[in-house]
Amino acid sequence: MPFPILIDALDLMGTFVFALSGAMLAVRRDLDIFGIVVLAVAAGLAGGLVRDMLLGAHPPAALADSRYLLTALAAGVTAFFLNRQIERVTKPVMVLDAVGLGLFAVAGTQKALIFDIAALPAIVLGILTAVGGGVVRDLLVTEVPRVLREEVYALAALLGAAVVVATDRFQLPEGPMVVAAICLTVLVRVLSVWRGWQAPKAPKPPKPPRTP
Amino acid sequence: MPFPILIDALDLMGTFVFALSGAMLAVRRDLDIFGIVVLAVAAGLAGGLVRDMLLGAHPPAALADSRYLLTALAAGVTAFFLNRQIERVTKPVMVLDAVGLGLFAVAGTQKALIFDIAALPAIVLGILTAVGGGVVRDLLVTEVPRVLREEVYALAALLGAAVVVATDRFQLPEGPMVVAAICLTVLVRVLSVWRGWQAPKAPKPPKPPRTP
Amino acid sequence: MPFPILIDALDLMGTFVFALSGAMLAVRRDLDIFGIVVLAVAAGLAGGLVRDMLLGAHPPAALADSRYLLTALAAGVTAFFLNRQIERVTKPVMVLDAVGLGLFAVAGTQKALIFDIAALPAIVLGILTAVGGGVVRDLLVTEVPRVLREEVYALAALLGAAVVVATDRFQLPEGPMVVAAICLTVLVRVLSVWRGWQAPKAPKPPKPPRTP
Repeated sequence: MPFPILIDALDLMGTFVFALSGAMLAVRRDLDIFGIVVLAVAAGLAGGLVRDMLLGAHPPAALADSRYLLTALAAGVTAFFLNRQIERVTKPVMVLDAVGLGLFAVAGTQKALIFDIAALPAIVLGILTAVGGGVVRDLLVTEVPRVLREEVYALAALLGAAVVVATDRFQLPEGPMVVAAICLTVLVRVLSVWRGWQAPKAPKPPKPPRTP
Repeated sequence: MPFPILIDALDLMGTFVFALSGAMLAVRRDLDIFGIVVLAVAAGLAGGLVRDMLLGAHPPAALADSRYLLTALAAGVTAFFLNRQIERVTKPVMVLDAVGLGLFAVAGTQKALIFDIAALPAIVLGILTAVGGGVVRDLLVTEVPRVLREEVYALAALLGAAVVVATDRFQLPEGPMVVAAICLTVLVRVLSVWRGWQAPKAPKPPKPPRTP
Repeated sequence: MPFPILIDALDLMGTFVFALSGAMLAVRRDLDIFGIVVLAVAAGLAGGLVRDMLLGAHPPAALADSRYLLTALAAGVTAFFLNRQIERVTKPVMVLDAVGLGLFAVAGTQKALIFDIAALPAIVLGILTAVGGGVVRDLLVTEVPRVLREEVYALAALLGAAVVVATDRFQLPEGPMVVAAICLTVLVRVLSVWRGWQAPKAPKPPKPPRTP
């Protein structure tokens, strides 16, 4: 980890952005200040908590270091007071969410590699870190998680995670490659929303023999 | 931990009360005896299991000690046979739920402090221990968790957890303070239901530019 | 563990079958290829991941060994291309699901015993391993998990897990008993579907005093 401070700062930025997405969802669902804070904390920290529980990294970073919680709380308070302003700027929020996705995918994959996880599981842990907070956020208000609804969300995280694994495998210069990985995720995610990219669906039978 | 036996007894009481809430929800949702037991175990044990997974306390208390499972099973069987009687006494059940909330918030925070978690994350773990079982219970039947719907639920747990942290920080006498912390949580929770306290909601735009 | 290779093979078979169930659900819900893969991985691996997190088995088997992920991905791809053929053979799929249930219940209980978990919690961990993937799968598309809806699902897993615990307790020959445990679970599950067995429900009040 040659860039601990950079990674640290990126991690907190990602936490803020994701916590903000949770808090904004809570505002839209008409939850009170406590619901807003709960969803902010869940969306901001759950991805990293699940990653650290799976890796056996105890205590998890988000509990060992109070700054993560303070960051998520700050996002909740920000959304409480400024949600009308934030709601008006959906495009910047979408870009910020893509940045959070890239930051967490990269940080999650790097941490998995540090714990000697193999390439494929490390990529999965990176994706899980990136989408986990959003999954918990959406499940808490009983919505199907965005990662299942939006086409190129997990894929964008996967690309960033794969670049990190390739950097490690081929001993590429870590600094520029981390930046490249984050940018790749952000670019693919933003482009996919902008251009309305669709992933292929399975050809289905004309009428299923039974309902799910 | 100067009161291991007291804490132990409180933990089992909290487990029973929460497991009962899960079993009663299963009865209302017309689930069979297995569904009742599953929801009882989930509601009674999930909060502590998540806390112990996050702390790296292996094996978790609820698995290391069979009494927790037996307690949850007993609650399931109780609800199966006596649900009509229990349903008629909603006020006592609400008070019992508040007691469980206080017990788990205090026990969760104490365990976090024993694992050298800092003040703020210890409070969050206490809240998570207290509300985690209810969250899993509600998610399993695809309801928005009570902690997001009811105003002063997480807050009541937070107050009890904060008293525990203050006790530890300022070296206050642990016995009386633990009792005070539990009473504070119960009091705030019961009063909030009784008086219909509402937490503030965020001022929202007249019409959101897009649906969530 | 006298049969590491057998257990290994059974574990991968169970992973494939459960991953297939997740992928097929994703196809029915009209999710795209990424959603299919996410649900396949969740359904195939979540049970074992939760078991390993609770036991403190780090890193979890499903991450330490890339074959689990590859197996789940293979199931996702299989469902993507062959879902119409698979959908037509619901009975074989149901039997396969029962086999997965038996395999995971046995493997989960065995692993818990290796980690010195007592009999009752070991059975619960076996059940959790067996039904965990399905629970996560169903929650991700906001359905009430099958384990709560279908009568004799958790019970079938419980029977297999109990046989494993009895084998350990009474020093019975492990090879034949493992086979017997899996067969028992499969048999009970398949019979229960075939004969429409129903578990008893709690006698309910004619009209509940309040909605849940």
